[in-house]
Amino acid sequence: MTISRVLLLNGPNLNLLGGRQPDIYGKETLDDIVSRLRTQAVKAQWELKDFQSNHEGDLIDAVQAARLDGTRAIIVNPAAYSHTSVALLDALNAYEGMVIEVHLSNIHKREAFRHHSYVSQRADGIIAGLGSQGYIAALDAVIARFAA
Amino acid sequence: MTISRVLLLNGPNLNLLGGRQPDIYGKETLDDIVSRLRTQAVKAQWELKDFQSNHEGDLIDAVQAARLDGTRAIIVNPAAYSHTSVALLDALNAYEGMVIEVHLSNIHKREAFRHHSYVSQRADGIIAGLGSQGYIAALDAVIARFAA
Amino acid sequence: MTISRVLLLNGPNLNLLGGRQPDIYGKETLDDIVSRLRTQAVKAQWELKDFQSNHEGDLIDAVQAARLDGTRAIIVNPAAYSHTSVALLDALNAYEGMVIEVHLSNIHKREAFRHHSYVSQRADGIIAGLGSQGYIAALDAVIARFAA
Amino acid sequence: MTISRVLLLNGPNLNLLGGRQPDIYGKETLDDIVSRLRTQAVKAQWELKDFQSNHEGDLIDAVQAARLDGTRAIIVNPAAYSHTSVALLDALNAYEGMVIEVHLSNIHKREAFRHHSYVSQRADGIIAGLGSQGYIAALDAVIARFAA
Amino acid sequence: MTISRVLLLNGPNLNLLGGRQPDIYGKETLDDIVSRLRTQAVKAQWELKDFQSNHEGDLIDAVQAARLDGTRAIIVNPAAYSHTSVALLDALNAYEGMVIEVHLSNIHKREAFRHHSYVSQRADGIIAGLGSQGYIAALDAVIARFAA
Amino acid sequence: MTISRVLLLNGPNLNLLGGRQPDIYGKETLDDIVSRLRTQAVKAQWELKDFQSNHEGDLIDAVQAARLDGTRAIIVNPAAYSHTSVALLDALNAYEGMVIEVHLSNIHKREAFRHHSYVSQRADGIIAGLGSQGYIAALDAVIARFAA
Amino acid sequence: MTISRVLLLNGPNLNLLGGRQPDIYGKETLDDIVSRLRTQAVKAQWELKDFQSNHEGDLIDAVQAARLDGTRAIIVNPAAYSHTSVALLDALNAYEGMVIEVHLSNIHKREAFRHHSYVSQRADGIIAGLGSQGYIAALDAVIARFAA
Amino acid sequence: MTISRVLLLNGPNLNLLGGRQPDIYGKETLDDIVSRLRTQAVKAQWELKDFQSNHEGDLIDAVQAARLDGTRAIIVNPAAYSHTSVALLDALNAYEGMVIEVHLSNIHKREAFRHHSYVSQRADGIIAGLGSQGYIAALDAVIARFAA
Amino acid sequence: MTISRVLLLNGPNLNLLGGRQPDIYGKETLDDIVSRLRTQAVKAQWELKDFQSNHEGDLIDAVQAARLDGTRAIIVNPAAYSHTSVALLDALNAYEGMVIEVHLSNIHKREAFRHHSYVSQRADGIIAGLGSQGYIAALDAVIARFAA
Amino acid sequence: MTISRVLLLNGPNLNLLGGRQPDIYGKETLDDIVSRLRTQAVKAQWELKDFQSNHEGDLIDAVQAARLDGTRAIIVNPAAYSHTSVALLDALNAYEGMVIEVHLSNIHKREAFRHHSYVSQRADGIIAGLGSQGYIAALDAVIARFAA
Amino acid sequence: MTISRVLLLNGPNLNLLGGRQPDIYGKETLDDIVSRLRTQAVKAQWELKDFQSNHEGDLIDAVQAARLDGTRAIIVNPAAYSHTSVALLDALNAYEGMVIEVHLSNIHKREAFRHHSYVSQRADGIIAGLGSQGYIAALDAVIARFAA
Amino acid sequence: MTISRVLLLNGPNLNLLGGRQPDIYGKETLDDIVSRLRTQAVKAQWELKDFQSNHEGDLIDAVQAARLDGTRAIIVNPAAYSHTSVALLDALNAYEGMVIEVHLSNIHKREAFRHHSYVSQRADGIIAGLGSQGYIAALDAVIARFAA
Repeated sequence: MTISRVLLLNGPNLNLLGGRQPDIYGKETLDDIVSRLRTQAVKAQWELKDFQSNHEGDLIDAVQAARLDGTRAIIVNPAAYSHTSVALLDALNAYEGMVIEVHLSNIHKREAFRHHSYVSQRADGIIAGLGSQGYIAALDAVIARFAA
Repeated sequence: MTISRVLLLNGPNLNLLGGRQPDIYGKETLDDIVSRLRTQAVKAQWELKDFQSNHEGDLIDAVQAARLDGTRAIIVNPAAYSHTSVALLDALNAYEGMVIEVHLSNIHKREAFRHHSYVSQRADGIIAGLGSQGYIAALDAVIARFAA
Repeated sequence: MTISRVLLLNGPNLNLLGGRQPDIYGKETLDDIVSRLRTQAVKAQWELKDFQSNHEGDLIDAVQAARLDGTRAIIVNPAAYSHTSVALLDALNAYEGMVIEVHLSNIHKREAFRHHSYVSQRADGIIAGLGSQGYIAALDAVIARFAA
Repeated sequence: MTISRVLLLNGPNLNLLGGRQPDIYGKETLDDIVSRLRTQAVKAQWELKDFQSNHEGDLIDAVQAARLDGTRAIIVNPAAYSHTSVALLDALNAYEGMVIEVHLSNIHKREAFRHHSYVSQRADGIIAGLGSQGYIAALDAVIARFAA
Repeated sequence: MTISRVLLLNGPNLNLLGGRQPDIYGKETLDDIVSRLRTQAVKAQWELKDFQSNHEGDLIDAVQAARLDGTRAIIVNPAAYSHTSVALLDALNAYEGMVIEVHLSNIHKREAFRHHSYVSQRADGIIAGLGSQGYIAALDAVIARFAA
Repeated sequence: MTISRVLLLNGPNLNLLGGRQPDIYGKETLDDIVSRLRTQAVKAQWELKDFQSNHEGDLIDAVQAARLDGTRAIIVNPAAYSHTSVALLDALNAYEGMVIEVHLSNIHKREAFRHHSYVSQRADGIIAGLGSQGYIAALDAVIARFAA
Repeated sequence: MTISRVLLLNGPNLNLLGGRQPDIYGKETLDDIVSRLRTQAVKAQWELKDFQSNHEGDLIDAVQAARLDGTRAIIVNPAAYSHTSVALLDALNAYEGMVIEVHLSNIHKREAFRHHSYVSQRADGIIAGLGSQGYIAALDAVIARFAA
Repeated sequence: MTISRVLLLNGPNLNLLGGRQPDIYGKETLDDIVSRLRTQAVKAQWELKDFQSNHEGDLIDAVQAARLDGTRAIIVNPAAYSHTSVALLDALNAYEGMVIEVHLSNIHKREAFRHHSYVSQRADGIIAGLGSQGYIAALDAVIARFAA
Repeated sequence: MTISRVLLLNGPNLNLLGGRQPDIYGKETLDDIVSRLRTQAVKAQWELKDFQSNHEGDLIDAVQAARLDGTRAIIVNPAAYSHTSVALLDALNAYEGMVIEVHLSNIHKREAFRHHSYVSQRADGIIAGLGSQGYIAALDAVIARFAA
Repeated sequence: MTISRVLLLNGPNLNLLGGRQPDIYGKETLDDIVSRLRTQAVKAQWELKDFQSNHEGDLIDAVQAARLDGTRAIIVNPAAYSHTSVALLDALNAYEGMVIEVHLSNIHKREAFRHHSYVSQRADGIIAGLGSQGYIAALDAVIARFAA
Repeated sequence: MTISRVLLLNGPNLNLLGGRQPDIYGKETLDDIVSRLRTQAVKAQWELKDFQSNHEGDLIDAVQAARLDGTRAIIVNPAAYSHTSVALLDALNAYEGMVIEVHLSNIHKREAFRHHSYVSQRADGIIAGLGSQGYIAALDAVIARFAA
Repeated sequence: MTISRVLLLNGPNLNLLGGRQPDIYGKETLDDIVSRLRTQAVKAQWELKDFQSNHEGDLIDAVQAARLDGTRAIIVNPAAYSHTSVALLDALNAYEGMVIEVHLSNIHKREAFRHHSYVSQRADGIIAGLGSQGYIAALDAVIARFAA
């Protein structure tokens, strides 16, 4: 049986998780979250690849790579680039797998400029406000879709 | 051990699920979905109460009742009232439990007036675009939160 | 020969016709109008069912019922709900027959918030400003379409 | 000497007064307020009729009834429907007595969508931010106007 | 018995009817439509005069002429000039007869710039989305009004 | 027993009351109104100080003086400066007593630029549309608050 | 001594002056006005050429002709084309003489779409609301400028 | 024969005329202009009163005084207060004589915030861009109106 | 071998090229440009038809004619009508050949109202800012497309 | 060696410094600040003149005076008039020396209407959010510029 | 004879050409296009340098380098950065050679956020919608300009 | 005594200082400025670290590093990223030291899109328009704050 691959893509400043504004973003570090997701993936016989960058171009490169290496789904938390990156949207538009957008906080309770996400125009599903549980729900949704 | 209660609240036209515009809303009926969720709830020793109405006032009454009967969480798909009902937002503002807003479709890919939800200003979490899987993820999030 | 059915659906405050602001809405009562339309329908071998309510949910319920009982067309004057009800629009979106929207007055000569109607995004035809003649024209259009 | 009648009409979630968000809405229950107003009305030889509902249609029905039963004034706190209900505005437009709009809180200090009230386009007077004293001032104004 | 006159005024590109985008504008030519309307007019003892032009100034000249020659009503499909011509509105403002605005398609389902019509600020009645049936309904309305 | 002081502050053109546009502003002069309020104040053992000016700076000076001389409440009709004076708002922001904003007319029925008041962002209560009765209600509210 | 030439250019529907909406546009006909202006011009040894058209293109042609035939100034009442014609603005931009824009009524008291004039971006002077006196003032200004 | 009085009212910074930005405002001083206008007035048997102030309140006071002393017309250049003073508009609204608004420059060629004038909502006539000739034209218009 | 035909359509004021504002529009006359294009067309065995008008209606008529006479492409510089003519857009929408829109200047560096072109919603290609070279590039593109 | 003069101009409510909202505006009084600045000025052989007023007109008068008495720079904290006074902007536009605008708080973190300052369109430099240090920095910048 | 250099700069996701959404972007790869352009350049004795990156900073670096190495023109397809990159605009503002902006698709037919390009504020010429022919036309324009 | 550290962070295109548009940005190079600031820092016993990049991600990385290495203040000129980078704002939000934003030019005198800075929502102080003197003032402010 082949292993399916999912890419977990995290945008700018998410490397600070656990340290920065814990009332908004929670206390777990990104490593904690990736660990839990990897365990969850393995149980369902999926491979989880993860990548974080503060650089818009690196995130685009990663999406383009996923397009070529058979990655079946991308779980992406674009963070601040949600609101400003048409280039990331275009990279995702060129990707044909499943895309789930995750936000740790409920962006609709924050500043007005955070209410709009370019990535939402491409995402198959969107999860916001559930903290790290949002990633788990996203991975469940990926697994469920390809199991169906 | 006591049983916790969660209310599944569905807004206008969701009684048509399975029949109306299946490309947008999927093929399952609301009864199918409620059944699956009830099973999922029972496994976690939760009671799932469900209510659907086309009447804004009925939905408000239901939220007010949940406030008094010890319901610990509300999973709400406000459908069209997401975009127009300040009254439903106010009812939820007066409710102190967990609130998760679910939309079957990705509302950000539809008409501009569907991009804004009053309920999102109150919701703890928001899930959109995952079809009926969204309800499952919402219930998982409820269970996980109170298990923590 | 079978009888076709058309639903005449009138929204909030239209039960006041003939009494309220006759310079805007005319002097005929809603009963007068329904009578004339029923006569017109019978001549063309149609059955006219009519319903008026001040409750958004009741109007939605009525549209949903028409969807199931073989009603071939709905002539709807959504009145104030034209401008505020996405839920009524969604109910009509789920209905597959012909929809004609009627306004007694020319809404474009009134306050700015009356210039936009959600229902117009679904309506096959729209008639405004002709007073009760608008209903007659709407019924003519329904009859003509199914005669063609 | 005949008794004049005034209708006290309260919109959605006002049945929760005294329990919900007391920093915004105060500690008195709606019953407390109605009692005080009734006493005040009786002193001036007025009859106070009161009605609260979470249902937009019920509020419209109540305004239409007041139109027919000789009610000389309506004191209305439309709550959330202030901001969304053109139908309630239309019902009040068809009513010919005095209309005073009351808000417990100063709506101009809250979210932007609460700054606009459709009902204000019809109201003869508007009182906001004075808590339950606002109802008292409204009733005083009604009594003073008809005494003049 | 004297004959009343109605002017049927068609704006830019309507000479292409039957050939251009039949899914939007229908399959009948303008000549077909004029013929049917003339027959309908004659039955009611009206004279139908028709004029089509791609030139804004010609349409204005025609409205001004109707003002002087005793034309009792104008049925006008301003087409693209609906959205851009204040000059045509002014000509109609100076005309004192009945004015009915007709659009073949439902302009509210098309691009946003087609949702607004200057002519609607003057029109007594507006009919949209009924195809050529809209002209028939307009002529019926004219005849009914002057018969009343 | 000490006497409490309230400042009645009236903005530009209110010195014209009784003469200017009586359909909007009523027939009483400002002196008439001040007299009635003084009587009302005295009954409740309050001192009413009044000041009217057409000069924005004078109104600010008066608010600053009230801040220092122990005035417990300000009843202010900022008139045109409601809509344009951030400086008056700032003066009131620096004042710690009770502030009630009064408008003689219902500003929401007038030109759009009169719908917004900077002062409303500071006012504890707002009363509009009740004519001179609005000042009486405001003074009642002041007295009631400090009596409580 | 040479004669200077000024062009009086009147836009759509101004041929109706004296007949149309006299409360807005006054009772004099365009011929009356032209006569008075011609007399005024002759006294100052100017030649007045006048042209009126309902056709945007004709007005542009006239401006272009003035550019070539030595016309020293244009007094233009663009009427409805003020608000919609970039093409007329461009023609005037290419003209190097003096341009005075005249409106009979005060366009700022009318509908919002009449508040903006493209021609005002080119005009040296603008006169509005003075009725036919506006043309006289414009001609005075032209004469004064070239006399200086 | 009685003498009629006209008030020439100049707003902030107009005392700098002749010195400040001559490319925008011209080279004449305000005294030069007033002199010329006084001569013009005297010829027509009018009295010209003039007042300039940088203080909004002073301008309002002056308008109120004109209301009481029988001044038949006000020629006002509100300068910067055109764009910001509702209070000056209100003072002019309470004045019943003729009002002509003058701007030395064409305000429509300058910054966007100078395109709107509150005073224009009251002015009978508006003249802009003609430099000091604008005042002369305004006085001519006043004289012509009362001569008629 | 048959000759293909291309229509070169120039809008208002383009007949002034070479004379008007050469810093914006260049020094060549329209005749110069047409000559060069005709030579370029002939080399590729195309027939170039050219038409310029200041009249919106004439441009529409020309597009309609091209629709019927087998013209394979239209190179159009709509000039000012780019920004205001829905009617020209509609004529082009009814034309089925290739459409290239050319602007001599870079309209995005000019006034905001020149940034939007209705014609761009139909054009297959758009070229701006290259002066007369833009027409050459447009014709090259036409030739290349049909050669392909 | 001559002494240069700088004017320190403070707008409405800044006389309250040290008393009003110290979390926003700091604890120093305006006198404290002026003292420190005077010392700083003297060291650099500058004369510091200071003026505070709540009256827009007084501030304008002060700017006009500075224009005439050889003041080389103005350090201005326009406070609330930043956001509303075109008249103050115009006075500064007529002044030819250096202008530095100072705000004690970071106006971009406060209400939206405080984000825009008319004075910023004229200021050579702008300093915000540094409390009284902002005045010191402004004076340093003035001294440095004229030393250069 | 010296060789002139032109830089062909391609923005994010353009490395996917030929693979991604061929209905929008065409079937040629970026290498195909560069090859054709290089051939075209060589014929005219130009050197074509090309660079593509998904990183905004890399594109800026490339523009800065072109500024220093004597590159005479830049043909830039900024792709998604057109709509979001002020930094790229600033880099181009600092470059003194010719700049031509190319878009493969007609961005005015796509989502609203693609209608605006920051780069257009700097570009000498803009070409859109012609597919890879747009690059050829751009290079022709560069060659023609420097040949002139 | 320990040395405090301040980071001087410069955004895109600031490496071009001294060469690019000297009328806007001045004649000093970035190296000149850094030198002067280093000298100023050393005098006050501070260490100045400087970093410039055209890459948004690099700037974010630098802010994150400053967060960890005990840097007490950041003086940041975000240049073009002021207007577009939410990611940089988020990095600064996670930083707990003092932040001063510097712009060389007065951004409020430039294009509208430069009037808004995301970074201003986080900055403790903002200095604009003072050229390189702005950096000096910023460093003074940093030193003063920690000296206090």
